[in-house]
Formats: sequence, C-alpha cells, structure tokens
Amino acid sequence: MTGLVPPGAPDRDRAAVRRAAAAWSGLVEPGDRTAGTLLLAVGPVAALAWLRAACEPGTRARAVARLRDRLEDAPDELSARRLLAAVDRWGPRLGRIDTDRDALALQRLGGRVLVRGDDAWPTGLDDLGPEAPACLWVRGDPAALAGPPAVALVGARAATSYGTAVAADLACGLADRGHPVVSGGAYGIDAAAHRGALAGDGPTVAVMAGGVDRLYPAGNTDLLERVLVRGGAVVAEVPVGATPTRSRFLRRNRLIAALASATVVVEAAWRSGSLSTASLAAGLLRPVGAVPGPVTSMASTGCHRLLREQDAVCVTSVADVLELLPGGAPSGPGGHGAGTDPQDGLGEAARMVVDGLDARRTSTLDELVPTVGLSAADVLAALGELELAGLVARAAGGWALTVTGRRPAAR
Amino acid sequence: MTGLVPPGAPDRDRAAVRRAAAAWSGLVEPGDRTAGTLLLAVGPVAALAWLRAACEPGTRARAVARLRDRLEDAPDELSARRLLAAVDRWGPRLGRIDTDRDALALQRLGGRVLVRGDDAWPTGLDDLGPEAPACLWVRGDPAALAGPPAVALVGARAATSYGTAVAADLACGLADRGHPVVSGGAYGIDAAAHRGALAGDGPTVAVMAGGVDRLYPAGNTDLLERVLVRGGAVVAEVPVGATPTRSRFLRRNRLIAALASATVVVEAAWRSGSLSTASLAAGLLRPVGAVPGPVTSMASTGCHRLLREQDAVCVTSVADVLELLPGGAPSGPGGHGAGTDPQDGLGEAARMVVDGLDARRTSTLDELVPTVGLSAADVLAALGELELAGLVARAAGGWALTVTGRRPAAR
Repeated sequence: MTGLVPPGAPDRDRAAVRRAAAAWSGLVEPGDRTAGTLLLAVGPVAALAWLRAACEPGTRARAVARLRDRLEDAPDELSARRLLAAVDRWGPRLGRIDTDRDALALQRLGGRVLVRGDDAWPTGLDDLGPEAPACLWVRGDPAALAGPPAVALVGARAATSYGTAVAADLACGLADRGHPVVSGGAYGIDAAAHRGALAGDGPTVAVMAGGVDRLYPAGNTDLLERVLVRGGAVVAEVPVGATPTRSRFLRRNRLIAALASATVVVEAAWRSGSLSTASLAAGLLRPVGAVPGPVTSMASTGCHRLLREQDAVCVTSVADVLELLPGGAPSGPGGHGAGTDPQDGLGEAARMVVDGLDARRTSTLDELVPTVGLSAADVLAALGELELAGLVARAAGGWALTVTGRRPAAR
Repeated sequence: MTGLVPPGAPDRDRAAVRRAAAAWSGLVEPGDRTAGTLLLAVGPVAALAWLRAACEPGTRARAVARLRDRLEDAPDELSARRLLAAVDRWGPRLGRIDTDRDALALQRLGGRVLVRGDDAWPTGLDDLGPEAPACLWVRGDPAALAGPPAVALVGARAATSYGTAVAADLACGLADRGHPVVSGGAYGIDAAAHRGALAGDGPTVAVMAGGVDRLYPAGNTDLLERVLVRGGAVVAEVPVGATPTRSRFLRRNRLIAALASATVVVEAAWRSGSLSTASLAAGLLRPVGAVPGPVTSMASTGCHRLLREQDAVCVTSVADVLELLPGGAPSGPGGHGAGTDPQDGLGEAARMVVDGLDARRTSTLDELVPTVGLSAADVLAALGELELAGLVARAAGGWALTVTGRRPAAR
C-alpha cells in the first residue's frame, strides 16, 4: 500500500479502496477539485500512500515531482503549485482521521460506505467529475439511491403553510409513482418533502452536511429515523462525527442536485441556499423547476427569480414534475380544472351565428345575415353545423337556440 | 365619391375618409382580413364606392373583375373568390348602417372617430396589418392613446382578492410613472386595473367589444365614467349601438394587445380570454408577462400555463413590468426583500474559517488548520480578511469571533 500504482491500473483490493476512500472523505473538504482529480487519476489507495510519503519531513517537493513524473499530461488541477498547497491543506488532518473507528461507528448504526463501482453507487454523482465525493456514507437502504429517476425537492427552512403543503403533495405523488424524493433533511420544505414521500410509501433520501451519525437538525430526528426504517436513506460525503459547517451545507447541495434527475424549488427567499442547488442542477444540465406562489409572499421570491432569470420551468403539479424527468410526456390540461364548453369544436362562423341568434325568440335567415355579418350561404352552413351539435333547432319561421345553446360560454 | 381612386392615390377629403372608415367599421366584423386588405389598398372612400356599385343587381361579378384589373399584383386576400364572398357578407349591411346617425350619437357623448393619420391615432394598431380596425370610436381624451408606452393588464373576470389586489397595485405604479394602463373594462382583473390606474392618477384606456355608447358591463358604468372624466378613454372599433357579441370580445383582444407595448396577465383560468390576448401580443412580438399565484388557485392556472408553455416572463412587481417596456432596465433585487449578510463579500476560505472558529472560545492556528481543512498560510490570510471585516479579533493565544462574526448566516 506504500507503492504508487501507475495511472489507470485497477486497484486490486476492494476493501482497501473502500478504506482509503473513506479516509479521503475525512482528509479533504467536500468538492476539493485537486483531491478529486488525484483520486480519479490514481485511485484512493495510491493517492493516500503518496500523501503519507509527501508528509514525511523534507520529502514534500520530491514527492510532488515524482507524482507529476508518473502522470502523463497532468491536468491543471494537479500542477506542482496546487499539489504543494494541497499537501499543506490535507497533511495536518492525517493524524486526526481514524478510519477504523469511523467504520465501526457506522457499522453500529447499520450503515455502509459506498464507493464508485458498487452496485448501489448513484452514478449521477460521477457527473460531478473532480467534485464528486470520494465515497458516500450511507445509513438505511442503499437501494433508494440506485432506483428509478429521483427528484430533488428543496426550499426554504422558513416555509409557509402553502409551501409545505405543496411540497408534501408533490413528494407524495412522486413517491407513489416510485420516484425517490431527495432533499436535505432541514426544517420547512425539506421536511415536508420527506414527510410527503413517506406518506406516498416511497423511498426518500436525506443528504446531510455533517456525519450520518448525527441526524440534523435535532428537531427532525424522529422524521429522519422514520426515513431510515421505511426504505429510505440518510447519506453524507463526510465521515461520521463530522460537523455540519456552513461551507459543507453549500457543497452538500451539489450532491442533492447530482443524486436527482430533476430539481424543483418549492419555496425560497430572494437569497436562499436552495437557489444554489438549482444553479448546481442547471450546471449539471439537469432540469430545474420552480413552484410559483403569491407575489405578496417573500417565501416565493426566490422561485419567481428562478422563473424570471434562470429559465426554470413553472411547476404546479406532480404531472408537471414528471414531465421534467427523462422521457417525461407533456402533462396537458388534466387536473388543471379544464372544463368543457358547449361551443368547443365549433367553427368561427358557427360561433358568430350563436351570438347572432336571440335567446328569447326565433330568427329568420334574412335577419341573421346582416346581424352576423356573414353571407347567407355561410350562415346556412353554420346553422347546419349548430343543428348537428344540438345547439340550434329549426322552429316555425326560422331557427332558435336550444337549452344547451343558451348556456353562456367563456370569453 | 363614386369613381374608383387608383391604388396609392391619397384620398383628398379627410372628412370623407373619416365618414367612409366609420361606415366600414359597421359593415364588417372586426378583423375581416379581406376588408382590411381592401382598405389598405384603395382607402375607405373608394372601397365604399366600389362596394355600393358591386351591390347593384347583376353587377357583382363585373365589379370584382374591374377592381382586380385596377389592382396590380392583388394579394391572395383579394382573390376573385374572396371578393365575391365578401360582397355577399358586407352587402346585406349596407342598408342598415347610418353613419350620420352614429356620428351624431357619438358627438352627443363628446366622442370622436379616429382614423390612420390623425395625431392621436395609436400607431401600434398598424402592426395588425390587414386586421387593423378601419377606425377607432373614442370617448374621453384621445391623448391617452398616443402617449408613453402603455401596458395592457388583463385577466379573469372571476378574479380572487389576491388577483385584484395585485392588478390594482401594478396599475397604480405604472400610472404613477406615466404609463397608460389598457384593459377591457370587464369585472375582476380589468376593473381592478382601471381602478388602480385612477388611484395612480394616470390615464387608462378601456377597450369595448360593443359600441362606446354602452359602457359595458353595466356594473362598471360608474368606473368607466370615472375613466372618461379623469383623462382616460373608452374606445371601440365598432360603431355606437353595436352589441358586444362573443366573437367581438375575442377580436377586441387584439386591439388591447396592439394598443400596449407589453401585455401582462394577472390572473386567468386554464382557459381564459386573457390567454388569447397574451397570444395575440406575442404574435405582434410584444413582450408578455404573467403574474404567478398559488398553485392551489384555479384563478392562476392560466398564468402558470403561460409561464410553462408560452415563455411568458414572470412578473411580480412594477419594476418587473417596466423591464418589459422598450428600453426597460433589469430590475435587480430592489424591493424583493434582499437583506445584507455579515458574510457578504467574503472569500470562500474566510467563510470556512468562520465556520471553524468556536463561538465560545479562542482558537489557535494549530487547532484551526486541520479543523478548517486549509493550509496554515490560507488560514492566516483568511483571518486577516476577517479581521478587516470586523468578524474576527485577535485574542490571547489566538483568534475569536466578534459579536458580528457570531451572527448566523443564511445557508
């Protein structure tokens, strides 16, 4: 484990890979591009051995030079300057991490560490490239991560009752159709999304900013424990015991975006972390939806901003969300309160003749022609169409509207 | 007035043009493309003389042939077949119209007929091409029609209190900035828009589907009379006495769209006449805005449909509407509840160091480096930045957060 495996060579020992990846998840802050590039280039085992060697007194510069010699066409992220700085950043944590201790703690919680190549590894994370996590610390059912296309439902902690109701409705409908709901486990919209998915008897995934041993925030512990026992998962890219810092919350959002095939913001203030999730999803070329709300509600200003400035899709129903997913079909007017109108399907001339007929009496053709403003031939043709549609009936001396024909129509 | 004026020749007598245009507005239904094309080709006076001649017994086919001989490259709208059908359509009304009577009635109401070329003629109507009205019957102040860019605010008659409040707010703000507000005078959103403009002391224009002698609907008579006396106008393309039929309502919508530089739908059901106004505006390449609302409100489904399907711009404030107008500048976050955050403008490293500092005690550099996950040099630079920003202070043995630095920040 101390030698440097040449780039591209497969790591032989899967357990060693898992251990090394878990160690890397504690050595670096989430989204460290130099670390991600190094892991993609040489794998976590060789990278860890290299870092240990580079941290021996007086060997740093030589270790960097040796690594760059072995890498053909080293990318900019692995320049000598960046690697030297990285050793200064990662090295001080080498003495702090204890992968055995963390693995044991996770095992006691019934969890496991997933790495690239595992069946349950969510391949969507690979789209993050050098910002992909080294591994995923998972509690609950890993199957929730590799199922049908998932939807991220995110939004404000300071949500309104409108927002939480909409989030729960959407999540319930999505879960009911088998789509996992991904969110951040926070108060407000996140909690409503997880709750809605549970109500819809579908899996839901909560992505933590800190370690999965600590269900955060504390007020949502019961909810997140229900997620765990009901086929869902609680995941993190940092080891058990890690604290949820502000920057980890922001970086965590890229995992939410990458774990889902589409991201929908339900309520968000003008500046809100969920807007960053939406931007990250858009950066991954995943569809972004926003739920509109009253313009008088501060809790919807961020959603309206996404609609105005970011080309987010206006989402008002489960059908609208499904349309965002791969292969989603246009939702059409169903469920939107589309009504039928007795004048549906009528031609323009027929509509004009309906308008020209007096609801209280019979009209002659000679009266109708100048009233309607069409030729006698067109008026007769329209009357025939209306008779077939049951809106007009022949009467003594002319034509009259039927009961159906007298029903008012939308303007 | 009986001879046929060659195409392109100016009509000599302005009063005769006005009389003939007024007659045409009663002979044809709004938006009759054959009539519009004929009027653009030969002017209303010659066109009327030709129609009278074509309606003499046995002369129809000969009149059509003669007209087509005089027109070089007659457009498709003036094909022999269409002209013959048009004579059948227009002829029966020749005996009904009485321009002297209508002009007198309008005069008694203090109104006037505007034609193309008048100073107050709203040139936006010319964009309608062959669907432009022959003339405009106007009560009130015609100056309201030819002022700064106008905005059409339209929407459902069955509006909610939310919708009417937003419509009134937007109209008031636009009127206050000198932009006339155009609407249809109907109950609900239209009425709220007119009322809001009056409250903002600006002109507002109500476009009727029937004659301007009849302020429609009757329940809005008081409101429309206030519009007239407060510098606004009530206009129609049909003569006084004409009834507001359903098809005239739909055709009227194109005038609302053409009279305004931008159209905003405030509330609309899934199927609503105001969606047709939005489509017509888009067809004229005028910007279309839609006001979002709760997804649980049927009265907003049409607006959400415009946002989803028609690329309407999401409008939440007067600033958003102004941005739709020619030369409108991006509105920015002003008035959207944008707050300031003590960590605004900080670099990423500085934010990470704030997270790594313990709010309750002083931290040493050796503690901070592995906690934050940055090199000692980066942590020191970040501490310098934070000290300058007043978020961190040097203390015995290290650094501590100031009161400002302890303020929680948005995630």
